[in-house]
Amino acid sequence: MLENQIKNVIRDIKDFPKPGIIFKDITPILKDQKLCSDIVDEFVLQIKDLEFDAIAGIESRGFLFGLMLANKLNKPFIPIRKSGKLPFKTIQQSYDLEYGSAIIEIHEDAFEPNSKILIHDDLLATGGTVEATSLLIQKMKGEIAGYSFLISLDFLNGKEKLRKFSENNFSLANYQ
Amino acid sequence: MLENQIKNVIRDIKDFPKPGIIFKDITPILKDQKLCSDIVDEFVLQIKDLEFDAIAGIESRGFLFGLMLANKLNKPFIPIRKSGKLPFKTIQQSYDLEYGSAIIEIHEDAFEPNSKILIHDDLLATGGTVEATSLLIQKMKGEIAGYSFLISLDFLNGKEKLRKFSENNFSLANYQ
Repeated sequence: MLENQIKNVIRDIKDFPKPGIIFKDITPILKDQKLCSDIVDEFVLQIKDLEFDAIAGIESRGFLFGLMLANKLNKPFIPIRKSGKLPFKTIQQSYDLEYGSAIIEIHEDAFEPNSKILIHDDLLATGGTVEATSLLIQKMKGEIAGYSFLISLDFLNGKEKLRKFSENNFSLANYQ
Repeated sequence: MLENQIKNVIRDIKDFPKPGIIFKDITPILKDQKLCSDIVDEFVLQIKDLEFDAIAGIESRGFLFGLMLANKLNKPFIPIRKSGKLPFKTIQQSYDLEYGSAIIEIHEDAFEPNSKILIHDDLLATGGTVEATSLLIQKMKGEIAGYSFLISLDFLNGKEKLRKFSENNFSLANYQ
């Protein structure tokens, strides 16, 4: 079963990036291209009934499978990046971190108004960055078609936080 | 011709990230998945006679086509990241920027000694980050099999700087 395969390959790193956090290291997955292909195929299967116009991937790890998925489905790929990284005119959204805040950006010509956007990242934790991405899409008059994650840390209740944007929330490896 | 197609889609952004620089914005390419597929196919064609064991992609834009190329060729993908981003034990390399310096990292188990590594990024400019990546691979007892870039700003002489590591330097869109 793919979920178990993914979980067996993911490496738990204790106290990264700070004490008390167990970080899910996905880099071993990237060594196994058969597994990467299976992951993309399963992403496709999960969202097969979803209607959407483009995939937005969140920097940096959301670029990895985000573009592969977009390519497989022949949909435009939209990079969501940290402040100051996108060169053209951008729309910004700030969000709270545990200490301080951060800003993410999207190009203002990333999609047409009323487009349906699928948001992708490698991992859903508390959902702060993904919520900010959703607000960014709404600022641009886009609609959130749904979410697609490689990993969901369900115990952090990120899916609850995102329900107000879309009920469509898919993930391949879930930790209760 | 693919080179012209790429150049027609790339957007020149004046004075980004600082006055006097004309930045090559590749985000319009990502909207066109037929073009993305053609790019990956051309990467494959350019390096078809190259022997290598893994592809190292440089954060963040090197993750985009880097993983797609690795997947297409069934080779492990190794992320090269900015300091503090990789969760497992890392090897570091610092390099000079115009003002100050920066550090990049690789996981210490990214590849076995004597592996041949193809280095990928979206754009070769002066080659500072790519040179640092090459030194990182050498620190890990790896061999530089060659380089594969989407864009090369040939007038900045990055290829000259990298010749001491490998003569194999491929790029799809070249600006003289």
